[in-house]
Amino acid sequence: MKPLNQLTAVEAVAAIERGETTATAIVQACLDRIAERNDQIQAFVACDPQRALTGAKQAQAMAAGPLRGVPFAAKDIFDTADYPTEYGSPIYRGHRPVTDAGCVALARHRGAVLIGKVATGEFATQTPSKAVNPLRVTHTPGGSSSGSGAAVGDYMVPVAFGTQTTGSIVRPAIYCGAVGYKPSYGLIATAGMKALSPSQDTIGVITRDVADAAFFTMGLHGARDVMSGSILRPRIGLCLSRQWDYAHPSTIAAIERAADTLQKAGARVTRFWLPAEFEALEATQLRLFAFEARQTLAQERLNSESLLSPRLQARLQSGADIGLDEYTGMLQHVAQMRARARSLFDDYDVLLYPAADGEAEAGHAYSGSPRYGAIWTLLHMPCVSFPLETGPGGLPLGAQLVGQYGQDNRLLAAARFATTVLGTPHRTTT
Amino acid sequence: MKPLNQLTAVEAVAAIERGETTATAIVQACLDRIAERNDQIQAFVACDPQRALTGAKQAQAMAAGPLRGVPFAAKDIFDTADYPTEYGSPIYRGHRPVTDAGCVALARHRGAVLIGKVATGEFATQTPSKAVNPLRVTHTPGGSSSGSGAAVGDYMVPVAFGTQTTGSIVRPAIYCGAVGYKPSYGLIATAGMKALSPSQDTIGVITRDVADAAFFTMGLHGARDVMSGSILRPRIGLCLSRQWDYAHPSTIAAIERAADTLQKAGARVTRFWLPAEFEALEATQLRLFAFEARQTLAQERLNSESLLSPRLQARLQSGADIGLDEYTGMLQHVAQMRARARSLFDDYDVLLYPAADGEAEAGHAYSGSPRYGAIWTLLHMPCVSFPLETGPGGLPLGAQLVGQYGQDNRLLAAARFATTVLGTPHRTTT
Repeated sequence: MKPLNQLTAVEAVAAIERGETTATAIVQACLDRIAERNDQIQAFVACDPQRALTGAKQAQAMAAGPLRGVPFAAKDIFDTADYPTEYGSPIYRGHRPVTDAGCVALARHRGAVLIGKVATGEFATQTPSKAVNPLRVTHTPGGSSSGSGAAVGDYMVPVAFGTQTTGSIVRPAIYCGAVGYKPSYGLIATAGMKALSPSQDTIGVITRDVADAAFFTMGLHGARDVMSGSILRPRIGLCLSRQWDYAHPSTIAAIERAADTLQKAGARVTRFWLPAEFEALEATQLRLFAFEARQTLAQERLNSESLLSPRLQARLQSGADIGLDEYTGMLQHVAQMRARARSLFDDYDVLLYPAADGEAEAGHAYSGSPRYGAIWTLLHMPCVSFPLETGPGGLPLGAQLVGQYGQDNRLLAAARFATTVLGTPHRTTT
Repeated sequence: MKPLNQLTAVEAVAAIERGETTATAIVQACLDRIAERNDQIQAFVACDPQRALTGAKQAQAMAAGPLRGVPFAAKDIFDTADYPTEYGSPIYRGHRPVTDAGCVALARHRGAVLIGKVATGEFATQTPSKAVNPLRVTHTPGGSSSGSGAAVGDYMVPVAFGTQTTGSIVRPAIYCGAVGYKPSYGLIATAGMKALSPSQDTIGVITRDVADAAFFTMGLHGARDVMSGSILRPRIGLCLSRQWDYAHPSTIAAIERAADTLQKAGARVTRFWLPAEFEALEATQLRLFAFEARQTLAQERLNSESLLSPRLQARLQSGADIGLDEYTGMLQHVAQMRARARSLFDDYDVLLYPAADGEAEAGHAYSGSPRYGAIWTLLHMPCVSFPLETGPGGLPLGAQLVGQYGQDNRLLAAARFATTVLGTPHRTTT
């Protein structure tokens, strides 16, 4: 068997059920990895080995539970009673919520074991955390789910909760050589999550393969056999847009190669241009975000503005000129577009789209552009991102598949098909 | 001048600006009223006169502020740093959040003065609080914004924040002889509000007249002159549905009389049947609520179930058989219906609809049916409820006007027209 900290969630549950190992042994292996690596990677912002081991013992003692013994981490945007919850902001230094966020409580109830809290960009925005890319520590892990990407990519834990309001799951997952799954909006309830732009905030997971993303997310709802549905010949729409102009040539080439490979493996890949009315939503998303974040972080903005980063201050300020009429007009337009988005799937099961400009950016001041998530997040559509190949810089290049709202199972099946066909790029940690 | 605790928010701000009185004097008058009456009415669950008076002094010292000196209360579903926040549940007895909810912070920033926290049904559900109806203490004030209705109806405070997920603002407002305004979904950001069914939870206000509802809500966003738009001859759709079968004959008669009076005053009133596809949403709303509440209160359900009321336990249990496919299917259908709801306003500015079965129910075990809010809340449409006349039992009968999503100003103008024409029923407190 491979080292226990490298087990996927599916493998961990199976190994425990077969009695080949225990939740305690798996959690200990994760803790060992964290002890060894976290000083450098800074993925975890809080981790208490004793609490984690106690949790493992309790999970081991459970009669059943679809996620029994699966170690997981939560982005520090989720309330936890056991750990400080600082939302990536000095305003909340040492803050201790009295209860767990709903998704954390659900995961524990299903048998998963909370290992600790992982770094987040400031209030889940793109202002970076201290986490670094485990594949190359001089580079960003992406954001805002930076700790989630780094912890999973570095084998500290097989799964971590993240959140995406623009591109905060799909990008860090790829940067760190992992898989990012942003479900349909609302699939995981946001109770106890620090809100940012509530009409878009979506909880998801970063894992090391697609099966784990499905297994863990559906396991929260008690489902066990989630990947039984399969798609033999997915109809894939290679969705072109002006956003591709920002993608590095290496990304475009990798996606083209992937499309060819998928086609040869039986998928039907068709190129199409995203209709202009959808493209225009990128600008809408920015404005909607600015208005909602300004209102949602009103308390912090009004009472502690000097403790917000200049970047976030500017971002919130950019919403100051947006009136209620513009805001409700945007919401109304977006509601129409969400309804109309169904038509994108008349001919396709999923859309293939970039998820990041290119490889992880060098340095830690900039976590990369979230732009490729903007339209899909606004439209509440589920997305799965995964690495395609190792780029010229030696780090992963990736893409995302985008599904119809509510059709997560179909999306996950298509993503599983794609990652099986395409394989996982060779990973080296430097 | 009338007693200071009876001033509306508009009157209070004007009187302070003219130097006729001070924020301190108005707040003191409210505090005196609370001291005199709250033992009986149980509207406030937390009130600290010293804090309120300090807030009044700070407001008085502000150079400006659209809500300067307006006393307000917040339903105990909103986080406040100054006051315990118990969400109407023993699980959170003595709970002290570290910060204020966004809307509370905004109101204070605009110059309003927080007087304290008012009672809420358990987690903003229909399980009653201890508040009673100030117009007749043997009767319910409605729910779940029971304390908000009772405090405003009893002249303890001119405005109180409430929340509505089904009918929790529009009904208690009428029961207590006040005005309820549930804005378009999202108009007031929900940061720091305890969530229940996030796709429906809407923050609003209970006030003593329509102008105050507009003034306070738009004042949160910095607007001053909010009622300048007026509608001389509103086109009112008297919207019939099977839900009317549950309305008491006295309610139906009162709405019919109101329709006649409005028509004579120049409104164009037209009867129409709500299309069946919208009526069917009442059942959808119940299921959607059950699923979301079950997920959103997962932490409480899993860790403290015995501290939930049997009523709420049963309600959450009713969502246990709803799978993810049904849930996302409902969300998708509702998204289509929200887009289609625009067509309801092709011929009407507003819809006229019941807001409660009849007068406030006797006793305190049942807070009345929220049914008349279900469809409109699900569809995110703004609503204003107000008393029409005194019913045969001596308590108010009322109705609501429902507006198009995002057209709050038009709705408020129509509601102001209606309440001006119809007058305010005579109020007696017994």
